[in-house]
Amino acid sequence: MSDYAEGKSRWWGWGNLDQRFDVENRENIMPFMRESLGMSLDGDRFTDPSLEEIDLPAPRLGDDVLAFLKDLCGPDGVAVDRFQRVSHSMGKSYRDLLRYRQRRIERPVDAVVWPREEREIGEILRLAEEKNLAVIPFGGGSSVTGGVEPMGEKAGFISLDMARMNRVLKVDATSHTALIQAGALGPELEEQLNAHGFTLGHFPESFDHSSLGGWLATRASGRQSTGYGDIEDMVLALRMVTPRGVVDTRKVPSSAAGPSVLQLCVGSEGYMGVITEALMRIRPVPRVLDYRGLLFRDFAAGVSAVREMMQQGLVPTCVRLSDRAETALAKAFRSTTGPKWKRKGEEAALRLLASRGYSFDDGAFMVLGLEGEQDDVDYLRTGILQLCRRLGGFHLGTSPGKQWYRSRHETAYFREQLINWGVMVDTLETATTWDNLLHLYGEVQGALRSALEEGGARCMVACHLSHAYPEGASLYYTFFAPMAGEGEEEAQWEKAKKAASEAIMEYGGTISHHHGVGYEHAPWMRREVGEISIEALHAVKKVMDPADIMNPGKLLP
Amino acid sequence: MSDYAEGKSRWWGWGNLDQRFDVENRENIMPFMRESLGMSLDGDRFTDPSLEEIDLPAPRLGDDVLAFLKDLCGPDGVAVDRFQRVSHSMGKSYRDLLRYRQRRIERPVDAVVWPREEREIGEILRLAEEKNLAVIPFGGGSSVTGGVEPMGEKAGFISLDMARMNRVLKVDATSHTALIQAGALGPELEEQLNAHGFTLGHFPESFDHSSLGGWLATRASGRQSTGYGDIEDMVLALRMVTPRGVVDTRKVPSSAAGPSVLQLCVGSEGYMGVITEALMRIRPVPRVLDYRGLLFRDFAAGVSAVREMMQQGLVPTCVRLSDRAETALAKAFRSTTGPKWKRKGEEAALRLLASRGYSFDDGAFMVLGLEGEQDDVDYLRTGILQLCRRLGGFHLGTSPGKQWYRSRHETAYFREQLINWGVMVDTLETATTWDNLLHLYGEVQGALRSALEEGGARCMVACHLSHAYPEGASLYYTFFAPMAGEGEEEAQWEKAKKAASEAIMEYGGTISHHHGVGYEHAPWMRREVGEISIEALHAVKKVMDPADIMNPGKLLP
Repeated sequence: MSDYAEGKSRWWGWGNLDQRFDVENRENIMPFMRESLGMSLDGDRFTDPSLEEIDLPAPRLGDDVLAFLKDLCGPDGVAVDRFQRVSHSMGKSYRDLLRYRQRRIERPVDAVVWPREEREIGEILRLAEEKNLAVIPFGGGSSVTGGVEPMGEKAGFISLDMARMNRVLKVDATSHTALIQAGALGPELEEQLNAHGFTLGHFPESFDHSSLGGWLATRASGRQSTGYGDIEDMVLALRMVTPRGVVDTRKVPSSAAGPSVLQLCVGSEGYMGVITEALMRIRPVPRVLDYRGLLFRDFAAGVSAVREMMQQGLVPTCVRLSDRAETALAKAFRSTTGPKWKRKGEEAALRLLASRGYSFDDGAFMVLGLEGEQDDVDYLRTGILQLCRRLGGFHLGTSPGKQWYRSRHETAYFREQLINWGVMVDTLETATTWDNLLHLYGEVQGALRSALEEGGARCMVACHLSHAYPEGASLYYTFFAPMAGEGEEEAQWEKAKKAASEAIMEYGGTISHHHGVGYEHAPWMRREVGEISIEALHAVKKVMDPADIMNPGKLLP
Repeated sequence: MSDYAEGKSRWWGWGNLDQRFDVENRENIMPFMRESLGMSLDGDRFTDPSLEEIDLPAPRLGDDVLAFLKDLCGPDGVAVDRFQRVSHSMGKSYRDLLRYRQRRIERPVDAVVWPREEREIGEILRLAEEKNLAVIPFGGGSSVTGGVEPMGEKAGFISLDMARMNRVLKVDATSHTALIQAGALGPELEEQLNAHGFTLGHFPESFDHSSLGGWLATRASGRQSTGYGDIEDMVLALRMVTPRGVVDTRKVPSSAAGPSVLQLCVGSEGYMGVITEALMRIRPVPRVLDYRGLLFRDFAAGVSAVREMMQQGLVPTCVRLSDRAETALAKAFRSTTGPKWKRKGEEAALRLLASRGYSFDDGAFMVLGLEGEQDDVDYLRTGILQLCRRLGGFHLGTSPGKQWYRSRHETAYFREQLINWGVMVDTLETATTWDNLLHLYGEVQGALRSALEEGGARCMVACHLSHAYPEGASLYYTFFAPMAGEGEEEAQWEKAKKAASEAIMEYGGTISHHHGVGYEHAPWMRREVGEISIEALHAVKKVMDPADIMNPGKLLP
């Protein structure tokens, strides 16, 4: 019924219990991290929590409410047990992972409910209005902005888990569209589309643990968004159940009928209603996946290459360019097992690179992914590699690209170990136009460093460019530092986050390119869209959800 | 100062006074129209009006208001003269052209004002609130939906002509963006961009007589939108002055910071504020323009060809496919002057076509336009022509394509003669997904025919597909009928318009793909986006413009 099954999912952290980051076969990573952070990494700051350790108050919903919900959604459709409540009360941000390890859930949901159809959602919202309950739409629970966490003063909190509304309702092979229920997780949705020869092409890092509704509600971008587009480009129409009626936009490829109600619902973060289904554009499953690596002497040269390929119409499916710090980190991340001859070959390759003046310790690594028909991939590859060579890029062949592709969902698991060892680790992202990209890159990095290094601590700030457009790109930061003393952990993180957010606003970025707003980014929304726009969004909220039952406390300052 | 100069512009109709549709060098058009409509076309139903014939009440603005405006915008910045008031009181729809010829302006604006900067606009809005005046933003005045016409009960109407805010403020050759003032008309904007080697790529039929602000406010599409995108795809950020503050969105290529305030302003039709400037994506001026013609045996075959090119990623800059009626009309429209050898050559070509089973009297003509670098154009042309041949398309070479390109702004002028001769002529458009395209095509055509043929009259309904997407396309109808008797003209047109609009809503189209809403389409907005969405847009209006001074009566039912 739900992706959240006890014994299967790591409710206090990332992903599935049977998956973990494989440190053992990467012999360079620990020395690298120790050196970078100036810490031994052998302590046990935290241990994984068990459910029983969580101090959880009794659910505040009356028996009448629970009976109503059971009657409505079936006996399997409601849960108040410890596992479901705990796993639905927070997302997967650093702050969340920290609080789970501190056995601390300040604001738990009181019940989880799994509707099967729109009608049931309408009834749940009616009940919530009547009983002054908050309803928090829940897809895969992978929010890193606090999007699924209870907030505000309500008589109770219901997590509305969309897991049972996970079907592809219709595949239209003529129009290349599919009508998909919002609760479908990445793998569920792709499996159903693949059976018809199609793909959505939306593959965020959270792919296994996030849903179509969540992607739409947060304006997500997949790692192949440069080719397939961001989620807001992929949606033709949607339905959203609000406490005051259903928003239902026309199923057309484009329209001039006034302001875009569709794009008002996209990004609405469950704060105005529950997205229940959407008409999505789909694409034929690509016959060829061609992933390669390139190395540039510095970040700026690589940035120019990405800019030029986008502006010349040589648009790759996926392009990621790591800065110096992330390139060195990627090298340390590489698996060091395998046959001796292979490792010897790699060492020889590194010597060759060095002789040409390229190095993973002082360079910018690019992953280039091309997907499609062989002809198109060949045409693009020829043009892009030529362009990169002209701008000083060294073509490393397919091996590093394939390696990135294979392990692209693995690194997210490393956080689990790091946090337990006492490392603060988080990511944040923004976007800007090309003319401002290197400037913003430096300012945000500087702001993070200043915040983290205060008091003489060491830290590591790595960045990559991804999600490219002809006019600009996203910048994605990962930052690490020795965790502050007990009780200071959140404040340490908040300080860094605030410094970066201030720099983003000051130097021409957006507060989020694809993580969304939740409550983490809400304080910056006023500067993002202006006072009058905030008031307008509040007014929309008031119309659709006058009793403020939908995901209160999120999105707006 | 303004594009609207007396003695230059045809205030009662389309375009410039020194341009008219050249019937004399097209000897086939009159017989074709006579035959199709069953009328002689030699009568003079209307004559062009003169300004003196218009019954115009004295402006209702007090001297204090006019003095304030003159003080604010300079002595040249305000006008209450007959020409400016008359030419700013209606748009260019059939209904408008009819009423001008009937010397009938029921709701004239009282003054026209030309602000030079945002500050002046803010002051004008403040004055309007204080004095209960309506402000109607005016770009090029080419609205065919009633977008610039006074409506509602106000103490006076000010047409706010953006003509003096027509500069490209900044061209960013690195990011391929330009910051452009909203009052810039098509030619003004292109001239300034071209000087830097760039183009916006937005070329609607109204190009000469419409502005960036108008395009954004109505979600316009240019004829090359298949390649360059619709205006809503081209805008990265904008500023909009509302009576309660300025909306100012971040100048970034993409953002996940909540619902799109940008796409809430795009399509707002001057009903919430005045768009003053926008950051637009720009493209290098293409080195090659390759326009060609093809002929298919029927519309359905051509539709499949357009669909397949879009879905295979062989995206042309421009593609238009005429149905049987429009193909025959296009043949009749062709110039019949020129050297005898040329006409003989054309006749030989037609015989060759006929021997292969193709005919302009019973076929579907396609214009295919490719713009860009020679390499890219070659690559696309090879793929697209191959695909079209496979689907039964006959390649006619560049000559018909060039001819379409050269004369693409001419046919709009033909309305002037037709209306004077007593022909009702109008256009309307919609869009849908490919699976529904031929169905909707037939239903709207049928609805128009039924409405127009009542009482045994003849009519002509022509259609083309344009503005293609991988998921669907726009359908654009032109319809002609002998005009109803005196006093019945508007009712005749309204009946046809209503029948088509009902069919569009019933059979899965959108009420407008690129003409916008104005007041003509407002009655269908409830079915377009649903009741709760209408309420939400009303609430946004209330926040931004609580006194309802901005273009009252438009956009929403």
